[in-house]
Amino acid sequence: MLNIFEKRFPSELNRNDEYYMSHAYNQALIAWEKDEVPIGAVVVQAGQIIASAHNQTRRTLDPTAHAEILAISQAAKYIGDWRLNECKLYVTKEPCPMCSGALVVSRIQGVYFGLNDPKMGCLGGAIDLSNLPSSNHKFKVKGGILKKETHALLNAFFEKKRAEKKEKEAH
Amino acid sequence: MLNIFEKRFPSELNRNDEYYMSHAYNQALIAWEKDEVPIGAVVVQAGQIIASAHNQTRRTLDPTAHAEILAISQAAKYIGDWRLNECKLYVTKEPCPMCSGALVVSRIQGVYFGLNDPKMGCLGGAIDLSNLPSSNHKFKVKGGILKKETHALLNAFFEKKRAEKKEKEAH
Repeated sequence: MLNIFEKRFPSELNRNDEYYMSHAYNQALIAWEKDEVPIGAVVVQAGQIIASAHNQTRRTLDPTAHAEILAISQAAKYIGDWRLNECKLYVTKEPCPMCSGALVVSRIQGVYFGLNDPKMGCLGGAIDLSNLPSSNHKFKVKGGILKKETHALLNAFFEKKRAEKKEKEAH
Repeated sequence: MLNIFEKRFPSELNRNDEYYMSHAYNQALIAWEKDEVPIGAVVVQAGQIIASAHNQTRRTLDPTAHAEILAISQAAKYIGDWRLNECKLYVTKEPCPMCSGALVVSRIQGVYFGLNDPKMGCLGGAIDLSNLPSSNHKFKVKGGILKKETHALLNAFFEKKRAEKKEKEAH
């Protein structure tokens, strides 16, 4: 499934938020190629990317196969501990209720996302699970990284899906 | 790892909430035997149990391996659709933020739990994700099924863990 978006090649010399988000974005492109909703995530520990994943709910028929859940599982396996206290997660869209909750229970250090989601995002959009009053684990959240790019990608995918549906219905 | 709790054998003739919760409870016992936090879950479709799972975070070193997540994945595979609109989930404890969110995104029909969790439960305890104002998917929630039994089981596990820790520290 072709798309008009190109892979990003950020400089290895400047590992800032955009660097890591570019890698999450490249994962989202892989999702698109597989006809999955294009959302990607990476987990970073001490400056290194230790896990990368993209949304796979369609192919796996598994509602839990979101990019963040897969990246969290990978990262925990990599470090050999289910606690990700020293890890940051970068994801192209504000996490949904499940993924926001997974970031709470995995004790993530910080979450950095692209596009915000006022409807279903649970790190400040619809509600904020990073700061649940009764929870012992709170974490830093920063949105808006590569916002334009991550927005354009998701937008184009859903436009394409709507067009495909319309064409199907016309036949 | 021995425990003093016994498997439940509910009558097949009366498939009420306690029947399904008894099966979730038996899953929790399996978790205890593996030295995992004893929480179990089953998914029910048209009266049949189509998925059963227990918490496995310790063994798998995976913070996402909660009973509910595993049961949701299994159920979706079984029915061949990630949407669980016609399924109910029974779980021995009120779901955490991640699992409550997973029940939202998997479009579950209803959730029935044993012990409530005012601190981290997200189906009415700390907050209620089943009724997120901005979400299109709302679902029925009922707590307190086999509450005494599910409470006693979790309580005994954590008491045992505390005793083990104390003994370790004393040596």
